[in-house]
Amino acid sequence: MEFPNNCTIWTNGRLMTMDSTIDHEYGLLDQHDIITHNDQIIAVLPSTSYTKPIDATIVDLENHLVTPGFIDCHTHLVFGGNRAKEWEMRLNGVPYIEIAQQGGGINSTVRNTRELSEQALYKLAFPRMQSLANEGVTTIESKSGYGLDLENERKQLKVSQDLAKNYPIEIASTLLSAHAVPPEYKDKADEYIDLICETIMPTLWQEGLYEAVDVFCESVGFSLEQTKKVFDRAKELGIPVKGHMEQMSNLGGSKLIAQYNGLSVDHIEFLDESAIKAISQSGTVATLLPLAFYFLRETQKPPIALLRQYKVPMAISTDFNPGTSPFTSIRFAMNAASVQFGLTPLEVMEGVTRNAAQALGRQHTHGQLKQDFVANFAVWNVQNPVEIFYELGHNPLVHRVFHGKIANNA
Amino acid sequence: MEFPNNCTIWTNGRLMTMDSTIDHEYGLLDQHDIITHNDQIIAVLPSTSYTKPIDATIVDLENHLVTPGFIDCHTHLVFGGNRAKEWEMRLNGVPYIEIAQQGGGINSTVRNTRELSEQALYKLAFPRMQSLANEGVTTIESKSGYGLDLENERKQLKVSQDLAKNYPIEIASTLLSAHAVPPEYKDKADEYIDLICETIMPTLWQEGLYEAVDVFCESVGFSLEQTKKVFDRAKELGIPVKGHMEQMSNLGGSKLIAQYNGLSVDHIEFLDESAIKAISQSGTVATLLPLAFYFLRETQKPPIALLRQYKVPMAISTDFNPGTSPFTSIRFAMNAASVQFGLTPLEVMEGVTRNAAQALGRQHTHGQLKQDFVANFAVWNVQNPVEIFYELGHNPLVHRVFHGKIANNA
Ligand SMILES: [Zn+2]
Ligand SMILES: [Zn+2]
Repeated sequence: MEFPNNCTIWTNGRLMTMDSTIDHEYGLLDQHDIITHNDQIIAVLPSTSYTKPIDATIVDLENHLVTPGFIDCHTHLVFGGNRAKEWEMRLNGVPYIEIAQQGGGINSTVRNTRELSEQALYKLAFPRMQSLANEGVTTIESKSGYGLDLENERKQLKVSQDLAKNYPIEIASTLLSAHAVPPEYKDKADEYIDLICETIMPTLWQEGLYEAVDVFCESVGFSLEQTKKVFDRAKELGIPVKGHMEQMSNLGGSKLIAQYNGLSVDHIEFLDESAIKAISQSGTVATLLPLAFYFLRETQKPPIALLRQYKVPMAISTDFNPGTSPFTSIRFAMNAASVQFGLTPLEVMEGVTRNAAQALGRQHTHGQLKQDFVANFAVWNVQNPVEIFYELGHNPLVHRVFHGKIANNA
Repeated sequence: MEFPNNCTIWTNGRLMTMDSTIDHEYGLLDQHDIITHNDQIIAVLPSTSYTKPIDATIVDLENHLVTPGFIDCHTHLVFGGNRAKEWEMRLNGVPYIEIAQQGGGINSTVRNTRELSEQALYKLAFPRMQSLANEGVTTIESKSGYGLDLENERKQLKVSQDLAKNYPIEIASTLLSAHAVPPEYKDKADEYIDLICETIMPTLWQEGLYEAVDVFCESVGFSLEQTKKVFDRAKELGIPVKGHMEQMSNLGGSKLIAQYNGLSVDHIEFLDESAIKAISQSGTVATLLPLAFYFLRETQKPPIALLRQYKVPMAISTDFNPGTSPFTSIRFAMNAASVQFGLTPLEVMEGVTRNAAQALGRQHTHGQLKQDFVANFAVWNVQNPVEIFYELGHNPLVHRVFHGKIANNA
């Protein structure tokens, strides 16, 4: 093949390509090199099959395991405040109603997020992002949903955008204005949905601040009808949709998503077979959030066996948020997916690479070590893929490579 | 008061002393200084109540929260091999019997531990110890139990001893030769118990290689009668005892421990009220191991309400081991104790400080920020104690102070 000038050759790695066309578990390839140019993988070749161009930079990966950069496809990364004290109250037996009266719950996060400046929110979100990156994450989905009005939703999304400007990370922003009814619309949820559809959604879309729309469809969130209204408007504007669906009950949100060929349905503990059938035909990813399951001590597990049966791609994500999943560790999410839901290590790896990419509509460019994919990868001091998330406490990451460059943290 | 020459004054910290004589939750003290000399805390004083000696070293703790160094009072830190592949087989549905036939389970760890040299075991244990230290741990209990003969038990204990020689950490070594029946004593458990009592225990005790004796008392471990034999011998030799008790069934091991005024009973998911009554009178600590509970997907919780009722001190530990708790994170153990068992944050803090010290017989010197205690502490960038273990992924440790000196990791 012809090499462009100044490419980089990553050699002596053991490649976990996640390329499903390769006939090895995990798409494992030994004695292959990754050749990158700028931010792209331009080839994956047997090490002895080609002549290295003399102007190439050679990076010795010292027999470490190389994986695609991990993709955390569902987070609430940007917010103000802290819900640790509220958790302590709950553990001390303070009734929920009293905590709410003292301004706890999601409303406290909304209040704290609204109060803070863009700069202040940025400063809080930065170390969270860094923690994820420290475990090999190169793409993070980040949702709004604590602003709940035009100005504050914009502020949240701008912070997400700024994070990616100043740090070697890709952020995929999602508009989740339909996360909760803001206090000023109390008992007027339909009017708030109108505000979203008529003002927030189109304005911030035009400003290029997000790439998908999310709705929390649940008895304590928004109804199926309200969800449909948001999705219809998104469709008009040409925006992909996804949803927080079937976490505590089965409202039918996932079936609805299928009608819009939505990107993903997330949580889905109460998903039923007919909905699974529907999403299996709409190319929708089932995103599992095992850390919210852990933190909330849920007992109803997502229907893994049926998802397997209908070959629905499963993604795994941290769902990082201050109230129900305060964990910026993709490796913990991976471990919990196996421990709690019985996912095989291969399914777990698919869940943070190929399938997570699909949940963001990036499956043709992200989540595999493959020609023409973006050169985001992680280098690990482990023998087998499973060791990346079997033992927690010690982090086996050696390098994080972002857009073709080693981007280790300070 | 009179200060010795060259003491160190740690000022501007907010002190979580865990001193129960102070009438604040967590023994919190603001505007107090810790004064250390060599490896001791010689005073805790109101900042404005005394004149700082001119030769003192002043350390500004910048308004951070200061806690006693955490104590992980139950670990299996030293071993060879890796059980990640075995976990992958299990998740892939390979039957247990087949895994055992392929040499899996504890026997694989015994084999791998026996095969490795002291140096090789040291190299494996070092990063595990470092991971614990990274989260503010200054004392680690470390058990033998994968050697299962004189030579290899000695080797394991020597590695523990060496770790503490080369690194700012205290290791409390425990002899757990009665962990499993070694392959060469298959179907001859009683003979193996004799070997322990007549040879392993007295020899290694004389060599000063451990400070307590532990037995795995369980249907898959050793019987109550065998346990009693080991404890009787320990009593003769003047060695404190503790036990892996009541994890999967109720054999009565905890009641037995009470008769020996044992240090701790550990796991104790199946502990009953009469045994709780017994240990409440013998000064025995109940050590909870929430990460084994998590990893094994156990459903029977330890009897927290009864332990509270009888005022049994509860400790919390990682139980780090390759098969059932592959986690070198005390903060994860703390989080899981609250999430899974409903422990209050105050109980969690007691569990890794004062009560964990008691589980090691060190309650008069460790686990509190108090005059005449060892100067082991941790400095955290958090507002409230609960924040130390509410959010995982990001580590808020600023400094670890060991024996009066800042001992941050490389
Ligand atoms: Zn969410
Ligand atoms: Zn143990």
